[in-house]
Amino acid sequence: MKRNENFMQILMILIFNLGTFLTHGNPFNEATQTVIENNKLKVTVNEKTGSFTVLEKETNHLWKDDPWVNSAGLLTIKNKGKIEYLNISESKKVTVKKEGDHSIALSFINPVFTNGDVAKGVEIKTELRLVDSNAKLEVEVLSVNKGDYNLMELRYPTRAFSLETDVDKGAAVIPQKQGVICPSFISPMNGGSFCMWDDATYYRKTSGKLPLFNNGIGLTMPWWGTHTEKTAVVGIVDVSARPDMFYNINNNGQYLFNSKGEMSPYKRIAFLDPVWKINREKERKLITYEFIPKGTHVDMAKAYRKEAIKDGYFVSLKEKAKRDPNVEKLQGAIYMGVYGGYPHYVEMPGMAFTFKELQDIIKTTHDELGVDNAFFHAWGVFSNFVPNCWPINENLGGVKELKKAVDLTKKYGYLYSSYHAYSATLENDPEFNTELFAKDKEGKLKNTGSRWANIDQNKQLGLAKKSLHKEIAALELQADITDISFATFPDEDNTGLFNLAKYIDSLNLVNGTEHGQQQFIPYFDMFEGLTYLPNPNLVQFSHRAPLFNLVYHDAIAIFGKIQDPDNQISINGDFRVKSLRNILFGMGTTIFFSPYEFEGMKEMIQIANKVVSPVNRETFFAELTDHEYISDDFKLQRSKFSSGTEVIVNLGPVYQKTKEGEIIPAYGYKVTFSDGKVAEGSFKLTYN
Amino acid sequence: MKRNENFMQILMILIFNLGTFLTHGNPFNEATQTVIENNKLKVTVNEKTGSFTVLEKETNHLWKDDPWVNSAGLLTIKNKGKIEYLNISESKKVTVKKEGDHSIALSFINPVFTNGDVAKGVEIKTELRLVDSNAKLEVEVLSVNKGDYNLMELRYPTRAFSLETDVDKGAAVIPQKQGVICPSFISPMNGGSFCMWDDATYYRKTSGKLPLFNNGIGLTMPWWGTHTEKTAVVGIVDVSARPDMFYNINNNGQYLFNSKGEMSPYKRIAFLDPVWKINREKERKLITYEFIPKGTHVDMAKAYRKEAIKDGYFVSLKEKAKRDPNVEKLQGAIYMGVYGGYPHYVEMPGMAFTFKELQDIIKTTHDELGVDNAFFHAWGVFSNFVPNCWPINENLGGVKELKKAVDLTKKYGYLYSSYHAYSATLENDPEFNTELFAKDKEGKLKNTGSRWANIDQNKQLGLAKKSLHKEIAALELQADITDISFATFPDEDNTGLFNLAKYIDSLNLVNGTEHGQQQFIPYFDMFEGLTYLPNPNLVQFSHRAPLFNLVYHDAIAIFGKIQDPDNQISINGDFRVKSLRNILFGMGTTIFFSPYEFEGMKEMIQIANKVVSPVNRETFFAELTDHEYISDDFKLQRSKFSSGTEVIVNLGPVYQKTKEGEIIPAYGYKVTFSDGKVAEGSFKLTYN
Repeated sequence: MKRNENFMQILMILIFNLGTFLTHGNPFNEATQTVIENNKLKVTVNEKTGSFTVLEKETNHLWKDDPWVNSAGLLTIKNKGKIEYLNISESKKVTVKKEGDHSIALSFINPVFTNGDVAKGVEIKTELRLVDSNAKLEVEVLSVNKGDYNLMELRYPTRAFSLETDVDKGAAVIPQKQGVICPSFISPMNGGSFCMWDDATYYRKTSGKLPLFNNGIGLTMPWWGTHTEKTAVVGIVDVSARPDMFYNINNNGQYLFNSKGEMSPYKRIAFLDPVWKINREKERKLITYEFIPKGTHVDMAKAYRKEAIKDGYFVSLKEKAKRDPNVEKLQGAIYMGVYGGYPHYVEMPGMAFTFKELQDIIKTTHDELGVDNAFFHAWGVFSNFVPNCWPINENLGGVKELKKAVDLTKKYGYLYSSYHAYSATLENDPEFNTELFAKDKEGKLKNTGSRWANIDQNKQLGLAKKSLHKEIAALELQADITDISFATFPDEDNTGLFNLAKYIDSLNLVNGTEHGQQQFIPYFDMFEGLTYLPNPNLVQFSHRAPLFNLVYHDAIAIFGKIQDPDNQISINGDFRVKSLRNILFGMGTTIFFSPYEFEGMKEMIQIANKVVSPVNRETFFAELTDHEYISDDFKLQRSKFSSGTEVIVNLGPVYQKTKEGEIIPAYGYKVTFSDGKVAEGSFKLTYN
Repeated sequence: MKRNENFMQILMILIFNLGTFLTHGNPFNEATQTVIENNKLKVTVNEKTGSFTVLEKETNHLWKDDPWVNSAGLLTIKNKGKIEYLNISESKKVTVKKEGDHSIALSFINPVFTNGDVAKGVEIKTELRLVDSNAKLEVEVLSVNKGDYNLMELRYPTRAFSLETDVDKGAAVIPQKQGVICPSFISPMNGGSFCMWDDATYYRKTSGKLPLFNNGIGLTMPWWGTHTEKTAVVGIVDVSARPDMFYNINNNGQYLFNSKGEMSPYKRIAFLDPVWKINREKERKLITYEFIPKGTHVDMAKAYRKEAIKDGYFVSLKEKAKRDPNVEKLQGAIYMGVYGGYPHYVEMPGMAFTFKELQDIIKTTHDELGVDNAFFHAWGVFSNFVPNCWPINENLGGVKELKKAVDLTKKYGYLYSSYHAYSATLENDPEFNTELFAKDKEGKLKNTGSRWANIDQNKQLGLAKKSLHKEIAALELQADITDISFATFPDEDNTGLFNLAKYIDSLNLVNGTEHGQQQFIPYFDMFEGLTYLPNPNLVQFSHRAPLFNLVYHDAIAIFGKIQDPDNQISINGDFRVKSLRNILFGMGTTIFFSPYEFEGMKEMIQIANKVVSPVNRETFFAELTDHEYISDDFKLQRSKFSSGTEVIVNLGPVYQKTKEGEIIPAYGYKVTFSDGKVAEGSFKLTYN
């Protein structure tokens, strides 16, 4: 016995040392590994789990695999009516095979259900590839064999490139709407905001799934990333693919344990996963991770900008202005939405305006308020409900009086468009019927739950062609706004939408549309509302960041969202905060009002003309080159434009100092224009 | 043939006239009816469907039964894993039987599934009773025989007392948090707000279910109602019962048809239904409808106020001040929450304050800002995490320095409390363990998903008793705030909570707690945050109304919610709007800040002291007797207090005129004090 004990001891020491030797410089202590590397990156795959780490060599940062359970991916199966999430690293068989110097093939065969049952015949093949000598790693799901199972989604890679909350001082970067960053560490903030921030990290609301390209909570661009204090990684989705993005922001995974009545044993982490739809077959399930030493959200956006240019989404405003010089009238323009109850109602009592009243509003804006540039958008000039935007309403003054309004805008150098929509027929329209609705094969109506998207996209061009040319001729229009059709990029054949976009573009007017998506940038000059929703879901644990504008500022003019215009108080701020954000992000002011409110808009319009418009005018054609948070509480921010303009704003109620010692007052700003001139000021709340 | 035709014609005329005769004054054309009535009401039950109408005689208003399908009620059954809603009016057998002059017994036997299957053995018995000669109707679910089915809920009566959108010009009145009204007609508003309003009426979000007595989206009082321009009805739930409330606000029921790919054939209506939980057995499933000619939300609240007094929830602030005269120090007080990272963290870098710093803040508030009344609430004075609120942190200055701060508040006539909580143990506490957690019979942890409610309510008194008396002795305290325990009234044996409340009450301090529920009013003097959430769900189609204050203003002092203090901009407004709402509803100002923000709070504190405090001081012990919307856009509102104080505010950006021709400027107010003195003013946004 004694001898055996000694033998075992010596054996244990040997094994221990062997283990130490093998795992030197890598994070897996028990499994053997497969490695690929180039000058920039070293990718190490755990042969047991198939999960991988990436060493980014310049900053020597090791991006770990899933810190909770070393999972490579999570497979969603609907099994007997119940949805289960299978950790593919626990499959009966995991194979890891190096193919050449820069590629590793993986397979996950026969994954296992929670109760131990095996999903026989299910096989997932993936590949990791270094791209030449670049700091780029391609991660691709090559194939999924479904066996006899109802496979739905694959989160792959999962919990990779994560940040440990309050240890890694970085952020998760998410292009939801205009964009947000979610810091991975505690920072000073208002106590009430902090209560919500810290609590949210243990609650379900800091995790969820966001789709691409919708007008609700969706991502506007197919990329996301994480960064620490010293290095960043951004994942860019292949142009053919359409995964959702799963987010877990500083959450400790308690949501995985609530049903068991246990506390999560995991640390709080932040990560972003692609969620591939297994049944979406005509796509490459490919995400390319680019590693950027010293990178921030700005570098991530700029990495994607290159991709966007390559994919043809980027057409510059300069080019657009060459074709139609009227685009220049958007520079510094205040977007004035005059709402007469339309498109919801025709001649709505208490809200409709006559064309004489519209003329007065335009005149007052110029003569009394001294507004230099404006884009008037009149909601409610037709006798019919949408999608029949014609004829011009005689009861309100007819073509003659409306043309006078349009002529006034021209005289002042302003732009004008009536409100148009071709995607909706409304339940309260006396002429309502479902003839134009999109229908499925069985003749069922497709979009009964969304009144603004119920018309078949292939019928929309026809609706535009019925009347738009008549209106242009009658009023001699220079601009057009067509609402809502382009607020989403549906996951289907979008020929109908492109046909409508191309037709509108062919009219060579200044073209605007609601919200917008990157696919439609080549056809439009302005997007109304690619900003933030009045009620977003990430707001308690994020800071707004101009991600969309860092990519597209010089390709499309952005104004506020009509459901949350700059004159309204909302979760996104009041006029003070929104105006400051406008100059910081390089956006134009949006004032959206019902006629009876005009008197109350005047003060804000004048302030916008003095504070926001000059910055928007100078930066209009320029690239937004930089954006940074320069105070600990993220309220003080600085942006730079290729025009040479530099903007500092303080979005908070307390004065702040820059690193250079400059004081920016509460709700204050400092703009340095390209000629060196400085505009400084702040918003004050007083009473009398 | 000719003769037959004549005969038929005569017969038809006869039948028609007979029909007219029979249906005179009632809405059912085909079924026979059972009627009960008194001088005020006539209740007519359709014998086929069991649904009923109520004629309110004074105004001759007929409250119809379900205008969509004449359903009496909807039964939720979980059948083979699928949830189905059965219209009980389509049961195989419906019986309607008059019992005496004032009572009708109904039974619904063997309801039918959508596919035609019969839920055999299921039987629902209900009763309708007129209460003496009052305008009151009791509606009670007497029994539910479940047969072999998994019955979950019964919506009964369903879609009764509904308003037809834009025909009935009234409102649905919902005591969610402080309270809201949802108008049943189109009214002028900002265009963006109107877009959301009108669209929401066709979308699912205008329907849903609200629970009673939670801190999230819940109702704070067990009543709701609808009113037209001329008459109102309020349903008050029996004190033993705990139904949810289903709301459908101006919705056309499209949500019932989306899955079929069809358009809803129904009109838009507003209604509020009780949803009885069938398995909650120890309760009377009774709702008493009171009919109020010319009634509004004010009369509804006042009807419930009588009930609240009867049920013992109402103890006046006057009585409380008699017992502890320090309660008078709450009059006109600004509630100053100084947040040092606690309770989430102890000595949190960048946010913790020393007691010397706290003294400075208190001194500045008095000497520099000239604040007359204040309640200082210091978050972060202990060395341990909650629920161990002791000892006082020596690193921050210890008892000696904190006592100096407390002494200063006494010198100035202010109140002081440290932050306490006994309901939570936090995951990030180095001492974290689950020993105190509420557990189920199997030992599973109950509230893993809510860190602020994880401690067993029966262990909370013990935690308070460990240290609170030591702190009171050390600092000679006059006030206490105990957070969060009383923010809900869980649907269980609440002896533990009452024991804690009674103990705190026995200390005879000025007592405050977070949010609060009516059951705890007898034990507390102030509720922090019985206002609105930063992110409520009804906001797109409602206006805020002081329903809770109409019932309880003179029983409990209400201040803002710390997650949404008056100094922060949110969906509920910015400082301007919140201050105006404070004077209108008779609430105190809440300024909640991290120490580094104090400088930025000063201006708002001074304005609050001048504008809000004087009104709060005069109205503090008074009943809120009236509240009305006096402009078409609901922005201009007037309230009256039993102190003789009258407040008019304009919550919008445009000046408005009262009916008497008085102009109230944008974000302006006019207060007429009891001595006839008038305070007028408005908030201005300027920049320089």
